[in-house]
Amino acid sequence: MIKIGIVGYGTIGKRVADAVLLQDDMQLMGITANSFNYKISLAYKKKIPVFNLKNNINDFKAHGIELAGNINDLIKQSDIIVDCSPKPYGKENKERYYLPLKKKAIFQGGEKKDVADISFVAQCNYNDSIGKDYIRVVSCNTTGLSRTLNALDREFGVVRARATLIRRAADPGDVKKGPLNSIIPSFELPSHHGPDVRTVLYGMEVFTTAVVVPTTLMHMHNLNVVLKKKAEVEEVVNLFKRTERVKVIPKNQKIDSTAQIMEYAKDLHRIRGDIMEICVWEQGIGNYNGELFFPQAVHQEADVIPENIDAIRAAMGFKDAVKSIKKTNNSLGIN
Amino acid sequence: MIKIGIVGYGTIGKRVADAVLLQDDMQLMGITANSFNYKISLAYKKKIPVFNLKNNINDFKAHGIELAGNINDLIKQSDIIVDCSPKPYGKENKERYYLPLKKKAIFQGGEKKDVADISFVAQCNYNDSIGKDYIRVVSCNTTGLSRTLNALDREFGVVRARATLIRRAADPGDVKKGPLNSIIPSFELPSHHGPDVRTVLYGMEVFTTAVVVPTTLMHMHNLNVVLKKKAEVEEVVNLFKRTERVKVIPKNQKIDSTAQIMEYAKDLHRIRGDIMEICVWEQGIGNYNGELFFPQAVHQEADVIPENIDAIRAAMGFKDAVKSIKKTNNSLGIN
Repeated sequence: MIKIGIVGYGTIGKRVADAVLLQDDMQLMGITANSFNYKISLAYKKKIPVFNLKNNINDFKAHGIELAGNINDLIKQSDIIVDCSPKPYGKENKERYYLPLKKKAIFQGGEKKDVADISFVAQCNYNDSIGKDYIRVVSCNTTGLSRTLNALDREFGVVRARATLIRRAADPGDVKKGPLNSIIPSFELPSHHGPDVRTVLYGMEVFTTAVVVPTTLMHMHNLNVVLKKKAEVEEVVNLFKRTERVKVIPKNQKIDSTAQIMEYAKDLHRIRGDIMEICVWEQGIGNYNGELFFPQAVHQEADVIPENIDAIRAAMGFKDAVKSIKKTNNSLGIN
Repeated sequence: MIKIGIVGYGTIGKRVADAVLLQDDMQLMGITANSFNYKISLAYKKKIPVFNLKNNINDFKAHGIELAGNINDLIKQSDIIVDCSPKPYGKENKERYYLPLKKKAIFQGGEKKDVADISFVAQCNYNDSIGKDYIRVVSCNTTGLSRTLNALDREFGVVRARATLIRRAADPGDVKKGPLNSIIPSFELPSHHGPDVRTVLYGMEVFTTAVVVPTTLMHMHNLNVVLKKKAEVEEVVNLFKRTERVKVIPKNQKIDSTAQIMEYAKDLHRIRGDIMEICVWEQGIGNYNGELFFPQAVHQEADVIPENIDAIRAAMGFKDAVKSIKKTNNSLGIN
């Protein structure tokens, strides 16, 4: 059993914790909390040990939560830490805690790539990550681009990929961010996602631009890919159908927008209504002059969760990528 | 003086009417109305003659509006009609009224291209449109793409253009449409805008995809263009600065989103806060591997208004495109 500590219990941390609890080769040693909030209370009711990050024991006591110790105690009890802090606290935590205590750790994609020995998407570069002390699971958007581009590259060869990312403005529970009624272009050229894809798909010729739009539900990517080998639309559909963690949304299902995908995930009774697969609309796949076009949607809160589970196994030296991916998928209800 | 009748007094019709009133070579003979609403009342107060489209005289009488006649009366008094009906009523009106009465007409971009003898963007193909009986001003998005692509093509030559359109969901006054919190991909490949650009930029190699997002303010386009001649970013900026009806939004002005452009237009005291120019963000223009990238914003309610004015002159045989464009721009405060 791999003993796991989770530092940071927000959007990603709470999901990684639930995913760890579903693994038969992992044991959740606990989570850390900055201060009390309802999420800590829910975790405590599930018997997840809570460790404090700051010295505010009374805040927890006042809400009936008995702490199991502080962050150092959690780290010492664990074989590996999954750091789910908001950027750039992952890097700070590494220098302050994980390095001095010689503890392995997984970081999230908000951190810069140099926080870790390697950046990670299971189906792209699991094998390169085996036994690494510090692994960075790339961001939701980078994970989404990497999954489909990796599949296309292995099957047909990618000459160049161009993507426009239409980014959701905030997560559904985030009531502080905007915009409410505006489109905000990114002036970063390329947006950071393109270079980030190359941290897991080495040398991929990919260029991305991005805009932010007033929605909370999912990111969308409009992709335009030139392939080495000619690919008929049907071949691409079949490739994506058999690609791990990619879901082809068939025609005529009335799942024609990000909101409808989220509703569909709820109807599937997925935990929290999450959809961990990258969703490609079959109806939007098309060829023009040797260029492949397709639209995909990314559930920003969820797609990296299975990657965190696989990254744990890779860091701990589990050598079979395919087996880890299947095991994770089965445990999380990804078919 | 060219005598002009306007059929349809909605988002576009009311703006074309105001623009016609500002031309020293045009006379507004009146507008048509389906039924009473506040816009008709405002027009009536401005002494614009109101003609009824349907037989509902009492509806207008009840609101104190004395009708000047019916649509046939307006058409007979006018040299040319600007049809601003929602699609597909332009085509219906043509068959029912303009053809039998042998009257010239301008149509809007919602109509199919075969409604007219030619599709129109002044700076692209004014000369081809001179003396034509039926001219279709292309849609707001097509106008936006055509203005910048035409400039690039004339200066550097366009090998191919790719654009992702991030479309506003509804106009600000439209309270019935969605989505509120979703991104809706278009499954049309290409979206109709690409082929529509070719109705004014003949043979242009352009392919567009589109999504709809929950905002009302402006459309946005993310463009990726391969040019025949290499163009430095500064050359592109200078080209757009001297291109008619294109506005370069400079860096460091805090005009970094569609909402801020709309606020800027209000601060310029533009009528209705309209911005008729296609806005290109200087900061977003960049080159990568021989491809030019830039983001532009389109005020969907306004950019086609000067085109309607020029289309009237072209249809009526005014032969100097440059003079018409300058005249229109000066009258409308476009610098």
